[in-house]
Amino acid sequence: MDQIRIFAPASISNVGPGFDLMGFALEKPGDVISLKKNNLKSIRIYNKSDMPIPVDPEKNVAAVAIHAFLKEFHLEQGIDLFFEQKIKPGSGIGSSAASACAAVFGANELMETMLPLAQLIPAALKGEFIASGSIHADNIAPSMLGGLILVRSYEPLDIIQIPIPESLYYVVVHPDIVIKTAESRKIIAEQLSLKKALEQCGNIAGLVTGFTTSDYELIGRSLKDVIAEPVRAPFIPGYLELKHKIEQTGALGASISGSGPSVFALCDDMETAVKVSELMQFFFERINIECETYLSKISPLGARVIHQ
Amino acid sequence: MDQIRIFAPASISNVGPGFDLMGFALEKPGDVISLKKNNLKSIRIYNKSDMPIPVDPEKNVAAVAIHAFLKEFHLEQGIDLFFEQKIKPGSGIGSSAASACAAVFGANELMETMLPLAQLIPAALKGEFIASGSIHADNIAPSMLGGLILVRSYEPLDIIQIPIPESLYYVVVHPDIVIKTAESRKIIAEQLSLKKALEQCGNIAGLVTGFTTSDYELIGRSLKDVIAEPVRAPFIPGYLELKHKIEQTGALGASISGSGPSVFALCDDMETAVKVSELMQFFFERINIECETYLSKISPLGARVIHQ
Repeated sequence: MDQIRIFAPASISNVGPGFDLMGFALEKPGDVISLKKNNLKSIRIYNKSDMPIPVDPEKNVAAVAIHAFLKEFHLEQGIDLFFEQKIKPGSGIGSSAASACAAVFGANELMETMLPLAQLIPAALKGEFIASGSIHADNIAPSMLGGLILVRSYEPLDIIQIPIPESLYYVVVHPDIVIKTAESRKIIAEQLSLKKALEQCGNIAGLVTGFTTSDYELIGRSLKDVIAEPVRAPFIPGYLELKHKIEQTGALGASISGSGPSVFALCDDMETAVKVSELMQFFFERINIECETYLSKISPLGARVIHQ
Repeated sequence: MDQIRIFAPASISNVGPGFDLMGFALEKPGDVISLKKNNLKSIRIYNKSDMPIPVDPEKNVAAVAIHAFLKEFHLEQGIDLFFEQKIKPGSGIGSSAASACAAVFGANELMETMLPLAQLIPAALKGEFIASGSIHADNIAPSMLGGLILVRSYEPLDIIQIPIPESLYYVVVHPDIVIKTAESRKIIAEQLSLKKALEQCGNIAGLVTGFTTSDYELIGRSLKDVIAEPVRAPFIPGYLELKHKIEQTGALGASISGSGPSVFALCDDMETAVKVSELMQFFFERINIECETYLSKISPLGARVIHQ
């Protein structure tokens, strides 16, 4: 096989109390990357998307991830990467994770190494590290594997698929402002009170119980983040007002996706999700910020080969 | 009704990463308290058990809990409490919680107030506060309601029943040494690192996922407490060695019950649970500490009327 084309989905990370620990795959948008073998033993980047991305292989998430993959499995192969479609960087919906996953997934297919997807995650994480300055798998794992993910542990890495309730919908809005993940992380305090830690523990335990038992009200009550949301909220214009309105519209709850500026809501029916989507659109248009919204069920699919 | 007799079970709290948040009801031992109306508008304590308990109503957990119950629901009634059977205080298996629950459950029956059990929990918590100096519901809730409990939130109180896997067994050993809950709490630091908080979050989320999806291996991997166990372990002679041996015997995992000195293990079959029980017994006998072990499935039953 000389050439292959891959889609890897965007993802919501930091799902409420699941800061650094929970994420899920979106149906769209996603990155589309074609990979083609070359005989130069080097990785070359060709940007055919409408987003600016680094073409230096040492600074490009996808190239760094492929390099880590080749090194880890003692492979040698030059690969040309053609970025055809790119999630906007700095959106908070796992743009760099999608690039890293598409690249490593693609390399595994191209080289016919047939490695299980879970074994590709460490290399993808190394790629994402270039973009965010830290290792967090709650975008990488859903973008690679699909579904709703709990990263139970980082050392060793332990990725758990959480059952998805039948009629759970997400809505995510991406307002057109930029927050850099690396900068946004710095504002999270390195110490916290026992009381806050236990609040976060109670809520993440409630959240996964809600998901696994399809208890929608429990999901709503548990979608509370006392660690990241309070310090990141001020970076999103009108965030608290928006969140309040989303909840009043009937959503189970809402929180910041990744390090923002995207905001997501969870709903227990399609009708409410559509209303929330309209509310989000109207909210940002009113304050002259362009935005895009996406609405669907959590995607069970992660990175995959596409043929068209 | 003038008289009633109540059993309230012992309970394991601080279930691994569920420090202050998770507990479950034991089949036995438990407190047995008889309640009888008197015409004096006062609460009197009669100790017929073989354990020392305070008979001053202001210092007795059960009396304080009943007083809180009567006050909360604007009731006036004198009640005599006859302690017939008492879990050893300071055991780490919810001795004071069992007294508080038996008392309040009994008062609700005796007064025929017919309040749902969840509404009795705040009064029982006030009783337990006298013994432990803090409000933690992870003994009270399972002793009152039975089953495996997550205290998602304290303000407001939100008690969640977690599904119990079919072939899950606990073994608990109570070595005959005394640790006071109030003193044992003081050694838990009021601040912790973000890294530790996220480890605890990952593990409690993994633990409840393991319980709700009957994933026994996940239960085992998640039964890790980075907050309380490291500082409490030194108070239990040989704890780390015992824990290691329990795990080698095939248990899913082990941790400290409550603030100790009791130690519990979870197993996925009866045979292993019996072996673990024998190991525990032998371990403490060898170092000349008397102990008792209890082995069963998690009890779905909490406080209840008994007739014999």
